[in-house]
Amino acid sequence: MDKLIKKIIEKDMNPTVAGLDPKLDYVPDFIKIPCMEKAGDNLMKGAADALFEFNKVLIDNLCDIVPAVKPQSAYYEMYGVEGIICLNKTMQYAEEKGMYVLLDVKRGDIGATAEAYSAAYIGQTDYMGKKARSFTPDCITVNPYLGTDGLKPFVKDCNDHDKDIFILVKTSNPSSGELQDLVIDGTPIYEKTAAIVRELGADSIGEYGYNRVGAVTGATYPEQISRLREVMPNTFFLIPGYGAQGGKAEDCALAFDKNGLGGIVNSSRGIMCAYKKGDWKDEQFGLAAREEALNMKEALKKCILK
Amino acid sequence: MDKLIKKIIEKDMNPTVAGLDPKLDYVPDFIKIPCMEKAGDNLMKGAADALFEFNKVLIDNLCDIVPAVKPQSAYYEMYGVEGIICLNKTMQYAEEKGMYVLLDVKRGDIGATAEAYSAAYIGQTDYMGKKARSFTPDCITVNPYLGTDGLKPFVKDCNDHDKDIFILVKTSNPSSGELQDLVIDGTPIYEKTAAIVRELGADSIGEYGYNRVGAVTGATYPEQISRLREVMPNTFFLIPGYGAQGGKAEDCALAFDKNGLGGIVNSSRGIMCAYKKGDWKDEQFGLAAREEALNMKEALKKCILK
Repeated sequence: MDKLIKKIIEKDMNPTVAGLDPKLDYVPDFIKIPCMEKAGDNLMKGAADALFEFNKVLIDNLCDIVPAVKPQSAYYEMYGVEGIICLNKTMQYAEEKGMYVLLDVKRGDIGATAEAYSAAYIGQTDYMGKKARSFTPDCITVNPYLGTDGLKPFVKDCNDHDKDIFILVKTSNPSSGELQDLVIDGTPIYEKTAAIVRELGADSIGEYGYNRVGAVTGATYPEQISRLREVMPNTFFLIPGYGAQGGKAEDCALAFDKNGLGGIVNSSRGIMCAYKKGDWKDEQFGLAAREEALNMKEALKKCILK
Repeated sequence: MDKLIKKIIEKDMNPTVAGLDPKLDYVPDFIKIPCMEKAGDNLMKGAADALFEFNKVLIDNLCDIVPAVKPQSAYYEMYGVEGIICLNKTMQYAEEKGMYVLLDVKRGDIGATAEAYSAAYIGQTDYMGKKARSFTPDCITVNPYLGTDGLKPFVKDCNDHDKDIFILVKTSNPSSGELQDLVIDGTPIYEKTAAIVRELGADSIGEYGYNRVGAVTGATYPEQISRLREVMPNTFFLIPGYGAQGGKAEDCALAFDKNGLGGIVNSSRGIMCAYKKGDWKDEQFGLAAREEALNMKEALKKCILK
């Protein structure tokens, strides 16, 4: 995680990641109407062009103050192949602008298939001896339901290619407890998952004390964040659920160490749709996102560094 | 699941699905070398063209005897955007040839994001009022780690759009037990998942007694298949792990009812790479796949209908 942590430090200790989950509904009319009209019957192309314009302006307005972006793959897959082309362009643009790119794909499968997913996003694909990258994020999210043989291929590629992953431990949604909170001999499932995550990361602790195998821990469950910080002292946390989902800055702060490091907090709709609140004009959506990101940074820093 | 079940009955009660997980390694030289040479530096395009040619011949040789194909998304994503274009073409080709298309994507996320994934694969995407499908499978696989609010959007779209899903319950891989077999008050996690699956499908029982919300239950764990059949009497099973992974026909048979229905058994490498065993020439790979599929059908039927 050193690459991510360095960017957090460079950006004035800003521990936030801007979620890029751009439903067409979020894109202002002055961008999407011309794109859709130009594309005619090719609805996917029109939508994908609109999303990319939207993302570009957001990235332009955020890249000097926010260390990372987190595109959510679902919101690109829903616009078909054109959506995935837009995802690719978005990741490349964010990288050009110096941002760390965390692709939220939540992939997970049996060992051989996990190798293929890992090749797609973290490692390289073999083309009859020639190797090339297919998608180019710095990091992806991974689902642990299949156990370690579905996780190890990702960890190996992280170590070989200087990349990172975040494994789902305790997710931010209301029903996350149905399986994750079930208790076995006093230990909830999310702690069982945490033990797997800790073990997989043990060999890759970097210069700030954190390793390449991070954990997703929802801001909406602060007690669990505290407990998981105790049992995973060297694990970096990706903390979704801030803002729109109800997570608060003081809850997120529970993940952080005395140096103000330890996690990265995601806001998606809060930043992307900031222009829909207050007196902003549609044309100012980038500026509104920037102001919201600055406010979020200050709110988090106040709690983290106290 | 009625559409799938009708195709199983039409194909001489053949309860098999051919996995299309085409690594470039599996494609014979006489197909892949010309495709790669023609594409030059565009490695992804060369690979994707080769995979599509390979898949087409397999589908041509299987479509009159096998009811369904199961492309595994990872093996297309690893070849980038071109790989996903190939996946799309493969699904459309299989549909044209009358096969049921089960796309193995194992998606799973929080509610709002699950809606986006469901729009991508099961429902429709909204383009400023116009609706269109992005990817066109009959069915996908879904991961349950996030609980019911990550599953309900898929179930709703299944009911609205005459589609199906299979939720991971007990997977076929060696480490599946690390989380799935943990026992809470006498009940393993996979049975807790099974209860969720059963509940989600309760409203959609079709004419053969099975509903739209199926379960993935690995052939490599026969005891669990028996138990899961007891607790999910109206749930159709997708059974991976036959053949290459070690699952046997008599183990798969535990999922089936007295009418010879109840599940569909997947073989991927066993069918795709049948030509690499025995005296087949490379050019006969389609024929070899067909013979292997016929042998598999006979082996399964002997155990299921006894």
